[in-house]
Amino acid sequence: MTLKRKKISVIGGGFTGATVAFLAAQKELGDVVLVDTPAAENPTKGKALDMFEASPIQGFDSSVIGTSNYEDTADSAVVIITAGIARKPGMSRDDLVHINQNVMKSVSKEIVKYSPEATIIVLTNPVDAMTYTVYKETGFPKNRVIGQSGVLDTARFRSFIAAELNISVKDITGFVLGGHGDTMVPLTRYSCAGGIPLETLIAPERLEEIVNRTRNGGAEIVNLLGNGSAYYAPAAAIIEMTEAILKDQKRILPSIALLEGEYGYENIYLGVPTVLGANGIEKIFELELTDKEKAALDNSAKAVRAVMEVLA
Amino acid sequence: MTLKRKKISVIGGGFTGATVAFLAAQKELGDVVLVDTPAAENPTKGKALDMFEASPIQGFDSSVIGTSNYEDTADSAVVIITAGIARKPGMSRDDLVHINQNVMKSVSKEIVKYSPEATIIVLTNPVDAMTYTVYKETGFPKNRVIGQSGVLDTARFRSFIAAELNISVKDITGFVLGGHGDTMVPLTRYSCAGGIPLETLIAPERLEEIVNRTRNGGAEIVNLLGNGSAYYAPAAAIIEMTEAILKDQKRILPSIALLEGEYGYENIYLGVPTVLGANGIEKIFELELTDKEKAALDNSAKAVRAVMEVLA
Amino acid sequence: MTLKRKKISVIGGGFTGATVAFLAAQKELGDVVLVDTPAAENPTKGKALDMFEASPIQGFDSSVIGTSNYEDTADSAVVIITAGIARKPGMSRDDLVHINQNVMKSVSKEIVKYSPEATIIVLTNPVDAMTYTVYKETGFPKNRVIGQSGVLDTARFRSFIAAELNISVKDITGFVLGGHGDTMVPLTRYSCAGGIPLETLIAPERLEEIVNRTRNGGAEIVNLLGNGSAYYAPAAAIIEMTEAILKDQKRILPSIALLEGEYGYENIYLGVPTVLGANGIEKIFELELTDKEKAALDNSAKAVRAVMEVLA
Amino acid sequence: MTLKRKKISVIGGGFTGATVAFLAAQKELGDVVLVDTPAAENPTKGKALDMFEASPIQGFDSSVIGTSNYEDTADSAVVIITAGIARKPGMSRDDLVHINQNVMKSVSKEIVKYSPEATIIVLTNPVDAMTYTVYKETGFPKNRVIGQSGVLDTARFRSFIAAELNISVKDITGFVLGGHGDTMVPLTRYSCAGGIPLETLIAPERLEEIVNRTRNGGAEIVNLLGNGSAYYAPAAAIIEMTEAILKDQKRILPSIALLEGEYGYENIYLGVPTVLGANGIEKIFELELTDKEKAALDNSAKAVRAVMEVLA
Repeated sequence: MTLKRKKISVIGGGFTGATVAFLAAQKELGDVVLVDTPAAENPTKGKALDMFEASPIQGFDSSVIGTSNYEDTADSAVVIITAGIARKPGMSRDDLVHINQNVMKSVSKEIVKYSPEATIIVLTNPVDAMTYTVYKETGFPKNRVIGQSGVLDTARFRSFIAAELNISVKDITGFVLGGHGDTMVPLTRYSCAGGIPLETLIAPERLEEIVNRTRNGGAEIVNLLGNGSAYYAPAAAIIEMTEAILKDQKRILPSIALLEGEYGYENIYLGVPTVLGANGIEKIFELELTDKEKAALDNSAKAVRAVMEVLA
Repeated sequence: MTLKRKKISVIGGGFTGATVAFLAAQKELGDVVLVDTPAAENPTKGKALDMFEASPIQGFDSSVIGTSNYEDTADSAVVIITAGIARKPGMSRDDLVHINQNVMKSVSKEIVKYSPEATIIVLTNPVDAMTYTVYKETGFPKNRVIGQSGVLDTARFRSFIAAELNISVKDITGFVLGGHGDTMVPLTRYSCAGGIPLETLIAPERLEEIVNRTRNGGAEIVNLLGNGSAYYAPAAAIIEMTEAILKDQKRILPSIALLEGEYGYENIYLGVPTVLGANGIEKIFELELTDKEKAALDNSAKAVRAVMEVLA
Repeated sequence: MTLKRKKISVIGGGFTGATVAFLAAQKELGDVVLVDTPAAENPTKGKALDMFEASPIQGFDSSVIGTSNYEDTADSAVVIITAGIARKPGMSRDDLVHINQNVMKSVSKEIVKYSPEATIIVLTNPVDAMTYTVYKETGFPKNRVIGQSGVLDTARFRSFIAAELNISVKDITGFVLGGHGDTMVPLTRYSCAGGIPLETLIAPERLEEIVNRTRNGGAEIVNLLGNGSAYYAPAAAIIEMTEAILKDQKRILPSIALLEGEYGYENIYLGVPTVLGANGIEKIFELELTDKEKAALDNSAKAVRAVMEVLA
Repeated sequence: MTLKRKKISVIGGGFTGATVAFLAAQKELGDVVLVDTPAAENPTKGKALDMFEASPIQGFDSSVIGTSNYEDTADSAVVIITAGIARKPGMSRDDLVHINQNVMKSVSKEIVKYSPEATIIVLTNPVDAMTYTVYKETGFPKNRVIGQSGVLDTARFRSFIAAELNISVKDITGFVLGGHGDTMVPLTRYSCAGGIPLETLIAPERLEEIVNRTRNGGAEIVNLLGNGSAYYAPAAAIIEMTEAILKDQKRILPSIALLEGEYGYENIYLGVPTVLGANGIEKIFELELTDKEKAALDNSAKAVRAVMEVLA
C-alpha cells in the first residue's frame, strides 16, 4: 500500500490555471504541477515558486512546481486542462474552435503518454466540444474525461440569490443543465434557500432576471475587467470537482459528461447531474423534464452540435 | 454587544491586493472591501465579484466588494495598504519614494476620515519608510500602524529549508530582523527544523546560500515572472498578521514597528519580533544580539534612514 | 472598536457540553467557559484543561476553562444550556419536567446577572418547554432565546439518506418542522440529494422507514450505548447555530422559536425554519403546508402544550 | 491508480479511541473503523453512529463504523491501538503489564491477518513496552510500528508556556526525549516562543516548574477527573502522527521508535525525534546531548528496560 502523495497537473499557467494550482495546494489535495509552453516557462516557474513560498504561512504540505516539460506530470491522478486561447476581436468562432482543438490534441497526446490512468477535467472553451475532443484524442473511458461548467454556473446563481435574500451562500442550492452560458438550462424548481423553493421566495420576474444574469455571468466579469476573464470562481469550481474525485466523495455535481442515450442524446458532451468519485463520473442522473425544459435542453444540445461540426 | 461582521479594507486592487482580499474572505475574517482608483474601478469590481461568486463553492460567508469610494471602507477594523507603484526602469529610487509617499498621504487621509479606529498594515515599498509615512500622516498610535516584511522573508526562508531537507514546512521556523530584502538580518541561530537548530542540520556555506536566496527572494520572482512581482506569499503574510489582530491571537510575528529606544534606535520603523493581537502591536521583544548581528541591524537601520531622508 | 475575543459559555459539563466546548474552541469561535455545579467542578476543570492541552496540536487559539463560578461567564456573547438530567427508569415525565425546569430557572438567573446581552441556545429536554422557561425567566427578547432540535434531526436524516444512496453528506438537504423526536414533522418534499427531490430517488416506503428511523434517532443511540445518550451530533448541531450567530452568517436553520401568530400559533416555542445571525433569530419563514402537514404540526404543538402545562 | 479512500482502524472504543475516530473522520483522513470487544460492540456502534450523524453538519465525507469484527478492518492503512486497561488501585505494575501485553498480542494477530501493510501507532500504556510487544508480535518492519508519547508531552508543555506568556499556542515549540511521564527528558534549550529561546523569556525556576507540571500532566488530569484519564490531547496527538503518515507530510515529530544503535541504545523503543511520512518512521534524528541530558535519557531507558523485563 503506497501512501505517496497524489499528483495533480494543471495544464495552462494563466490566471485560472494558477488559481487552480494554488487552491489545490492549499487544500493539500496532492503535489501540484503547473504546466505551460516553453515560452512561458519562467513565469510559470515564478508563479509556482511564489505559491510554494506561501506554504509555510498557509500551512500546507504540497509541492508546487512550474514546468514546460510533460515528464514532470508523470502519473498524475487528475489532469486539469485550462490551456487555450480566449476569443479575440475579429476572430471567428470557427477559428477559435480550431486553435483550441489543436491545443487539446497536443495536450491529450502528452496525457496519454505520461498519465494513462488520470482523470481529466476540461475547462477550455468551448468546453463541451473541447471535452469531446479530449475524449476522442485520449481514448480514455468516458468516466475519466469530464468538462466543467455547471458548478460555476450554479455558484454564480447561488451567490446572486444569497445577495438578493441576504442569506448565507451555504444555504442556497441551484441546478442547471445543458451548455455553458447562453444555452444554460436552469431548473429553478430545483433551486432552494435552506430547502425552501426559491419560487416561493422570489417573484418570477426577479428570478428570471437573476437567471439571465447567471447566463451572462462570464460576460459580466469580462466587461468589468476590461482585459481578461473570471478566474476565482472558475478555479473554485474545478477544485470542487477535483476534490470529489481525489477523496472519492460521491458528490452530486453538474458535469459535462458524454451522453450515450441519457436524455435521448447520443455521442455528445453535455451538462448533466452526475456523481463524482474515485472513478470520475460514476453515475448520471436522468431527471424528468417538463416540455419547456426539454426544449431548452434540445436547444443547448443543438448549439453544442453546431460547434462539434466545426471540429476538424 | 454587537456581533456584526468586521470589515477589512484592502487599498490597492492589483494582484497582491486582490489575493489578500480573496484569502481574507476565504477565512471568513470579515467582509472585504477592495479599493482602487476611479480609473480602475471596474476591474476592481470585476475581481471582487469573481471572488464573491466563488463563495458558495468555497463555503465562506464574507461579502467582497470592489469600489473607488472610500465611504465603503467606513469603520474598517483593519486597513491593508498595498497601493503604490513598483520601481520601473529609468526611475530613480527617490522618484519612487516620492510617488508612493504621495499615495500613502492620500490614503492616510481617507483612513483617518472613515476608519479612525482601524489598525493599518502597510505592504507598499519601500515598506519601512512608507509605514513611517502612514504613521505620521494618520497620527494613529504606533501600535496601530504596522509594516509587513518579516513574515514574508521568513516564509521564503522556511520554504527553501523545507525543500532542502525534504521536511514539512509546518516544522521549520525562521527568524529575521531589520529591513526587507538586501539588508534583512537573518538570525539563523534562532531557526530550527522540528526544534533542531538548522546549524546542526545544514552546512554553513549551504545555509548561507539559502539566506542569500531569501534576501533576493523578491527579485527571484520578479526575474522569473518577467513582468510583475510576487503576490501569493506576500498576501499570505498580510493575512497571517491580519488574522492575528482580528482574532486577538497574540501571535509572535516579525513586524515593522516604530522603535522608541528598542535596540537603541529612535523614531524609525524597523523589522523586529512583536506580539500581534487585538491592539495591533502589543509588545516588542528585544533580543540580545551578537556584535555581528548588531552591526548588520545598524546597517539595516542606516538604509532605512537613507530612504526616510528622501521623504518630503 | 474592540477586537477582543468573544466568550462562549456552555452550561453543563457532561458529554454534550464538553463536546460543544471542544468544537467551539477548535473553530476559534471565541474563548470557552465550561460550567458545572460545584460538586462537578474538578472533572469540569479536568476536561477543559485536557482540551486546552490539545490546542497546540489542533492549532487553535481559544482558551478553555472549567468552572462552577458564574462570574467566569461574564459578558458571554452566546450561552449554551446543556445542563439538566435525562429521564431515568421509574421517573415520571412530570418529575423530569419539574427538575429540569428548576435547573433552567437557576441558570437563567445567572445569565441575566452576568451576560444580559447574550444569545441563549437551549438543548436540555424537553427542549421546547425548557426554551420557553428560559425565555420567561430571563425576560430576554425572543430573538435571543433559541432551542435546538431541527438541526440535529435533519443531520440524522441526511446521514441516513447519504448512506442509503451512497452519496456525499454534503449534497443531502433535509427539512423538518415541529417538535423533537416523536412528533417531528418531516417535509420530505423539501428534501433533496444534489437538488434532486428525494421522492424521485427513493421509494415511498423506504423513505418512510428512514423518516421513522430519524424520529427515533435519539432512542437508537440510547439503546446502543446502553448508558447515556448521543453527544457528537447534538454538539455539532449546537455549534452550527452558534457559529451562525457569532459570525452573523444569516444561515437558514431550523430553530425552536417563539411563535406569535406564525403558523397560527401563539405563545409557544416550536421548531420552524429561521434565519440565524448576529441578532439571533432574525426571521421566521412561514411555509405553505399541506393539510396533512398542518395536522402533524398541530399534533406536535399539542404535545408541546401538554408539557408546558406541567411547568410550575 | 486507485483513488479509493484509505481506511483507519482504531482499536479500543473508549474515550480516547472514540475521540481519535471522530478527529480522523472530521479531517477526512479516510474511512474510520472503531473496534472493541464483542461485549462492547453495541456502545461502539452507538458512538460511531453518533459521529456519522454529525458528518452532514461538520461537512466531512468519512464513514465511521463500530464493530467487534476484525474483518471490518481489512486493508487498513493505519491502525491505532488504544485498547488495554488503566492501572487500578491494588493492581501491581507487573499485573498491568501482563494484561496489556496480552491485549497487544491478540490485537497484533488480527492486524497481521487483516492489514499486513498497515502502519501501527500504539498509545496503550506502558507505551514503550507495549510498542515493543506489537513490534515483536507482528514482525512488521520497525518503521511501521510506532509509539506515541512525545507529541502529547510537548503539547502539554506548549499549552502551559502559552498560558504563562499569554502567547498564541501556534508559536510555542517544545522538545522532549525519552519515556512518557516521569522519566521524560525535556530539552528546554530547544524550546522557543516565536523562535526566541524560552530560557531567555522565563526564569529557570519557573521553567522547571512548568517542566515538572508537564511530566505529571497525565496525573494532573486523572486527579481532576476523579474517574478516567485524559483523551482530548492524547487523541489530537495520535491524529497529528496519523495525518503525517497518511498525507506523507514528512513531519518532524517525537515518536517512540525502535533504536538500533541510535543514541547508543540497542533493541529498545524510546522517544526520539523522527520524520513521519508515507513510510512511517522515515528517519531518526540523533542530537548531541549534554552530559546531564544523556544521563536523564539513560535513566529513561533504564525505566523502559525494567518494564520490558516484565514482558512474558
